[in-house]
Amino acid sequence: MVAPLKVGIAGLGTVGAEVVRLIEQQGRILSARSGRDVRVVAVTARSKAKKRGLDLRGVAWAKDALALASDPGIDCFVELMGGAGEPALSAIEAALKSGKSVVTANKALIAKHGLRLAKSAEKHGGALNFEAAVGAAIPVIKTLREGLAGTDVNRVYGILNGTCNYILTRMEQEGLSFAECLKDAQRLGYAEANPSFDVDGHDTAQKLAILASLAFGTEVAQSAVYVEGISSIAPEDLRAAEELGFRVKLLGVAVRTAKGIEQRVHPTMVRKSSSIAQVMGVTNAVTIDGAGISPITLVGPGAGGAATASAVVADIADVARGIRAMPFGRPVARLGATKKAPMERHEGGYYIRLMARDLAGTAATIATRLAEQKISIESIMQRHPNGVDAGGAAGKAARVPVILITYATSEDAVRRALQAVQRDKVISGRPQVIRIEKN
Amino acid sequence: MVAPLKVGIAGLGTVGAEVVRLIEQQGRILSARSGRDVRVVAVTARSKAKKRGLDLRGVAWAKDALALASDPGIDCFVELMGGAGEPALSAIEAALKSGKSVVTANKALIAKHGLRLAKSAEKHGGALNFEAAVGAAIPVIKTLREGLAGTDVNRVYGILNGTCNYILTRMEQEGLSFAECLKDAQRLGYAEANPSFDVDGHDTAQKLAILASLAFGTEVAQSAVYVEGISSIAPEDLRAAEELGFRVKLLGVAVRTAKGIEQRVHPTMVRKSSSIAQVMGVTNAVTIDGAGISPITLVGPGAGGAATASAVVADIADVARGIRAMPFGRPVARLGATKKAPMERHEGGYYIRLMARDLAGTAATIATRLAEQKISIESIMQRHPNGVDAGGAAGKAARVPVILITYATSEDAVRRALQAVQRDKVISGRPQVIRIEKN
Repeated sequence: MVAPLKVGIAGLGTVGAEVVRLIEQQGRILSARSGRDVRVVAVTARSKAKKRGLDLRGVAWAKDALALASDPGIDCFVELMGGAGEPALSAIEAALKSGKSVVTANKALIAKHGLRLAKSAEKHGGALNFEAAVGAAIPVIKTLREGLAGTDVNRVYGILNGTCNYILTRMEQEGLSFAECLKDAQRLGYAEANPSFDVDGHDTAQKLAILASLAFGTEVAQSAVYVEGISSIAPEDLRAAEELGFRVKLLGVAVRTAKGIEQRVHPTMVRKSSSIAQVMGVTNAVTIDGAGISPITLVGPGAGGAATASAVVADIADVARGIRAMPFGRPVARLGATKKAPMERHEGGYYIRLMARDLAGTAATIATRLAEQKISIESIMQRHPNGVDAGGAAGKAARVPVILITYATSEDAVRRALQAVQRDKVISGRPQVIRIEKN
Repeated sequence: MVAPLKVGIAGLGTVGAEVVRLIEQQGRILSARSGRDVRVVAVTARSKAKKRGLDLRGVAWAKDALALASDPGIDCFVELMGGAGEPALSAIEAALKSGKSVVTANKALIAKHGLRLAKSAEKHGGALNFEAAVGAAIPVIKTLREGLAGTDVNRVYGILNGTCNYILTRMEQEGLSFAECLKDAQRLGYAEANPSFDVDGHDTAQKLAILASLAFGTEVAQSAVYVEGISSIAPEDLRAAEELGFRVKLLGVAVRTAKGIEQRVHPTMVRKSSSIAQVMGVTNAVTIDGAGISPITLVGPGAGGAATASAVVADIADVARGIRAMPFGRPVARLGATKKAPMERHEGGYYIRLMARDLAGTAATIATRLAEQKISIESIMQRHPNGVDAGGAAGKAARVPVILITYATSEDAVRRALQAVQRDKVISGRPQVIRIEKN
């Protein structure tokens, strides 16, 4: 039998501790599957004293991540500390430089420094695996990197943040406000005390940038992602979506267009009948549109200690088996630059909710402004603020919500039309705009 | 650059021709992804003269599959002829014996001879890849073999046959009979002239046996699969399912139980809210329950030339990259024997539809017979044959459908109770029984 794979783990939080446990419990299976034993021989974490319920007898304690990564006694360095920069970055670089393989769940780091690290992995012959960085236990990295190796991908999109999907699901099902649901999510541990990274879409953007690179063979370009969060979504948007046959999800969408590659994160109307619309609560899902074939959708737990650890251990097993896929599916030198398609030129349908100051004349004004931008309206709903159809009571209602669904048009045209409507002073407040994704 | 991977393809039907095209079209991407060129250098098929719209200049024509498999000029033998035995079997054996890697989409052959072939692949060092054999472009083999390498799988189940799902979807949505929908499916090319292999569940059984082996690390055991098809499903079952919050799907289910491994294919009631229930038409889906993590569901095109070719080319790309996962995830010597859990001891909820000869007294008789077997009833519906509730008209109706949902009980108990009810002569015809799957 081949010598055991000696693993060093930096970071013993929920995920790190679960990885240690899993390797211990699954030892026999792992060794059967990889043809060699997998052993955790050294670890490091912020506090050595902390109780973790782990039996670490016989496991060396390194003084820090860099020391662990440089330890000639390990073959595979597992980084589970997190953070887009130090000390994770230098530790991973040191491990790769000495020819070790690296497994990480660190999406922020891969989104920011992935190319540089991939180049080093390539040069020194180690693996750089990061299945857990996107969608935790959902094997989306492997699917894009290996499973669709011969298929052109035209679009990849998904629900990549469980916190946002939990909030939108509760808002939809219980008619609650964003603020109420966020508070609940925080109480239940689904959202951080500072929720901005999740609810403003940045977490989704990092994951999307990684998926886009794998899907299109382009360099990871997080800065090319257009980002909008879910905090402006109101219960009335979800009610209107329901009536119109949609659900609202925070999607990350990367799509090949004639103008380049669009990468965008924003609340999105998806048809209720689509696979992605069925995904509720903290569950994640990714849909891949391959050329000439029907979409493939992967659904599962996108976060949590056990689900993340499952992906980390699978990555370690690949290292043990000697599987060395290139980190981004092809050599870094053959990754194209990301030609960013500007958001103003995005094309698609739009949901627009306006608060008409006074119904008489407003609808006509709005219709005229949209027509000037050559925007065709698929449907228009006017309703009494209490949800009663505005038809009869229209004359009396001072402020009436007007909801429009447009046919495919450009972002630019929508922005210009709404600016004109605002200048006309026929609406109060900011118009609500939600993009519709075809699926 | 490494020498190109020289591919030989046996079988130029829809899938084979599409593979040739895909390798041609995706040449640059494939070579970027695998670090070497992939070239089709030789092919064979039943008729050389047949028009296929392929440019085969520069490609050798082998006299038959065995000759192609033995050709020292190829590195990778791709078998796309189909059939559970010859000539595919001998050709694959010859290829493996000479150290070549093999890619096949042949589920029947893998279900029947997979172990023997895996042993040979192991011995001689070639790969044996069969992603396309189950779920076509859905990367379920890779997910079980590699993506969940560190996770214990407790259950794997899915919709593995598009023909059956198409028929059940049409029956449900249009209230049509099985026979009508089958005829339509045949007209549209979704079902064969002899549909038995699909509609009687055998196709699903072969795929399930392969998935179970990968999921549980056991030998492929197609003969251990309990099989029931969909031809007995009536529109009234689908209507009742709808009212009770279920859908009926032909599922293949492999599950670890205290009594061994259950492998079963049968029409199944699944909760309408589950991911699997949303899968409509010819689409396939597989759900994997890993220990300690939420289920992972993979949805996509389970058949068709392009989808199958996509998986075949991904398998070829893995060969080109030198990825050599063991065919069933671990060495054949370490695959356990499948301890078959007998179907009589299956436990779960049941849907039972009976035609009561005469309502007065029948319900009491049925309830007594079920109680004798300690079966608890979750709900009972009696209805007038025209769908009107039987309440008022009960006395007049000569034959009234009675629909029962039981709490979890054993297959054995249900069979005994229904035999007793039949002996009592209070019902006419055969009882309809559909198992309920928790999900």
